[in-house]
Amino acid sequence: PDAQSVAAVRARDAQLTKPPGALGRLEDIIEWLAAWQGVAEPAVARPLVAVYAANHGVVAQGVSAFPASVTAQMVENFRTGGAAINQICKAHDIGLKVYELALERPTKDFTQAPAMDEREAAATFAYGFEAIEGGIDLLAPGEMGIGNTTSAAAIYAALYGGPAARWTGRGTGVDDVGLARKNAAIDAALALHGPYLSDPLEILRRLGGREIAAMMGAITAARLNHVPVVLDGYVVCAAAALLHALTPDAVAHCVGGHVSAEGAHGDVLARLGKKPLLDLGMRLGEGSGAALAISLIRTALACHRDMATFESAGVSGKAR
Amino acid sequence: PDAQSVAAVRARDAQLTKPPGALGRLEDIIEWLAAWQGVAEPAVARPLVAVYAANHGVVAQGVSAFPASVTAQMVENFRTGGAAINQICKAHDIGLKVYELALERPTKDFTQAPAMDEREAAATFAYGFEAIEGGIDLLAPGEMGIGNTTSAAAIYAALYGGPAARWTGRGTGVDDVGLARKNAAIDAALALHGPYLSDPLEILRRLGGREIAAMMGAITAARLNHVPVVLDGYVVCAAAALLHALTPDAVAHCVGGHVSAEGAHGDVLARLGKKPLLDLGMRLGEGSGAALAISLIRTALACHRDMATFESAGVSGKAR
Repeated sequence: PDAQSVAAVRARDAQLTKPPGALGRLEDIIEWLAAWQGVAEPAVARPLVAVYAANHGVVAQGVSAFPASVTAQMVENFRTGGAAINQICKAHDIGLKVYELALERPTKDFTQAPAMDEREAAATFAYGFEAIEGGIDLLAPGEMGIGNTTSAAAIYAALYGGPAARWTGRGTGVDDVGLARKNAAIDAALALHGPYLSDPLEILRRLGGREIAAMMGAITAARLNHVPVVLDGYVVCAAAALLHALTPDAVAHCVGGHVSAEGAHGDVLARLGKKPLLDLGMRLGEGSGAALAISLIRTALACHRDMATFESAGVSGKAR
Repeated sequence: PDAQSVAAVRARDAQLTKPPGALGRLEDIIEWLAAWQGVAEPAVARPLVAVYAANHGVVAQGVSAFPASVTAQMVENFRTGGAAINQICKAHDIGLKVYELALERPTKDFTQAPAMDEREAAATFAYGFEAIEGGIDLLAPGEMGIGNTTSAAAIYAALYGGPAARWTGRGTGVDDVGLARKNAAIDAALALHGPYLSDPLEILRRLGGREIAAMMGAITAARLNHVPVVLDGYVVCAAAALLHALTPDAVAHCVGGHVSAEGAHGDVLARLGKKPLLDLGMRLGEGSGAALAISLIRTALACHRDMATFESAGVSGKAR
C-alpha cells in the first residue's frame, strides 16, 4: 500500500465541503483505492467483472437444486446478455468477461478422489492471471458453477474446522434432503482427504474447483499489478480464504463487496478481516454483489474528485 | 399498496434466470415499488432528491460545530454543483431540487419559545407538497440546516422519551463541550414545552424546523400521489417519525435508504419498522444516503425488467 497517496487523498478530503468523516466508508474506500493503485488520484475508469464458470464432479452426489447442465446454459445467458450480472454491469458501465473452464469435463467427484491433479490446478491458477490483461483498474472476480457452494463449504471446513453443517447453506435453493446430502458429501471428503488438508494448495486441488483456482490466480495477478479487488460472495471468498491461508498479505488489496445470505459468509469475511460494503441478502454469485459495490466505489470517487472545497465554494469551516 | 401489481412482479421474478430469492432485497424493492406506484411494471424514470434548507434559532445555544451562515453557503454550493449530493445525483442521473426556506429568518430558539407559530408550521408543511410537481416517480427528501440534528434529537426525545443524550450525536462534528450544550438545550426545551408534547404537530411546531415541516408535507404528498419515498438519515427521519406518530400508515410507502452514523438513527428506523438498504457510516444529510439507495433501486429494476427468463434463455429449472 502506498502511504503517500493515502496522505494526498486525506489532504484533499479535508478540504471538501462536508464535515470531516461525514461520507463514512465512501471516504475510506478512496484511501483504499489510492493505497493499492499507488496513485494520489485513484480512478475507476476500467473496472472488470471476470466471471469464471466451471463444473463439479460432486454434483453426482445430489448436492444442488439445479442440474449441472445449467452452468453451460448460464454461460450462454451471460453471452447473450440475459443474466443479472449483465444488467448490473450495463447499468453501471462495468466491463464483463466470462471465462469458461472446460465445462464439458467436470472436476472429479471429491468424495472419491482429488478434484484436480497438480498440473491442472496450477495451470488453472495461472490462467486466472489473464483477468488483468487489457489494463483494468479495479477487478471483481465472479463465478458460476452448479455445485460450487459445496466446494466452497468444503474449503471452509478444511481451513477453519468442520463439520460441514457449520459452513453450508442452501446454495441455489436445495431442499432439506439435498442439504443433508451436501453435508454428507463434504464430511466424506474431509474424511477421505484429511491427512492432506493442512496445505491450502492441497485443499484447493482436492476440494476446490477450476473457478476457485482461476480466481486465486486473478486475485494474485491483481495484487502484483496495483489493481485493487472487490470480493463478491460465498464462493469467491473461498479463493480469497485459500490465499489468505497461504499468507494474509495476499488479500490485503481486497475489499469486501457484500455479505451473502449463503452459509457462513459473514464469518468467512470476519476471518479475512473484511467488512462488507453491502448487506442485501443476495446469494446469486456471478460477481453480482461486487458489481453493485463497484458502482458505490465509483460514486465515492465522483464525490472525492468533483466536490468543491471550502475555499472554492466560499463555505465557512468549523466555528471552533 | 396494490396487491395485484405485487403479484404480477412476483410472477415475473419467478421466471427470471436466477434461483428464487437470490437477489435478496433487490427483489423485495421491486415489490415495494409496484405496491406503491400501483403498477405491474414499476419505473424509476424521474426520481427526485428534494433538499430543504432552513436555519434554526437554537444555534444561538452553541449546539453546532459550524456557524449558521453555512446553511446559505451550502445552498449556493448546491446551486453551483459543488456538494456531495450534486456528484451523487449527477453520477446516477437523479433529479435534484433545492428549496430554500427563509434562511434569513431562522426559527425561534426553542429553548425560549416555540420554534414556529401555527400558521408558519402549517404553511411550510403545505409548501412541501410542491416536491411531487412535475410528475416524479420516486422521492427522496433531503435537508441542509446548521443546527437541525439538535431539532431532530429534540423531536425523538419528545416522541420516544428523553433524556436528550439518548438521541443526540455529534452532527457535523461538535466537540464534547458542544455536545453537552446540545443536550442541555434539548433537555431545557423538553422542560419548557413538556405539557404540549403529546401531540406530534405541537412537537413539530415547538421543536422542529422548517425543513422538517416541509419534508412532512413532501412525504405526505408522495403518499397521496403513488410516489414511493426513500428515507435518508437522521433529520429526514424526524419528519417521518412525526408522521408515523400521527398514524403509522402515513409512512407505509417509505423505505429506509440508509442508516446514519448519527445518534440513534438505527433505533429510530427500527421504531418506524424500516430496515435500511445501506449502512455505510454516512452522516452528511443532503439526501446523500437516499440518493445512493435510489441508484440501487434502479439497478434492481434493471435486473427485474431486462433479465432473461428460464424459457427465453433455454436454462433448465430446478432439478427437483
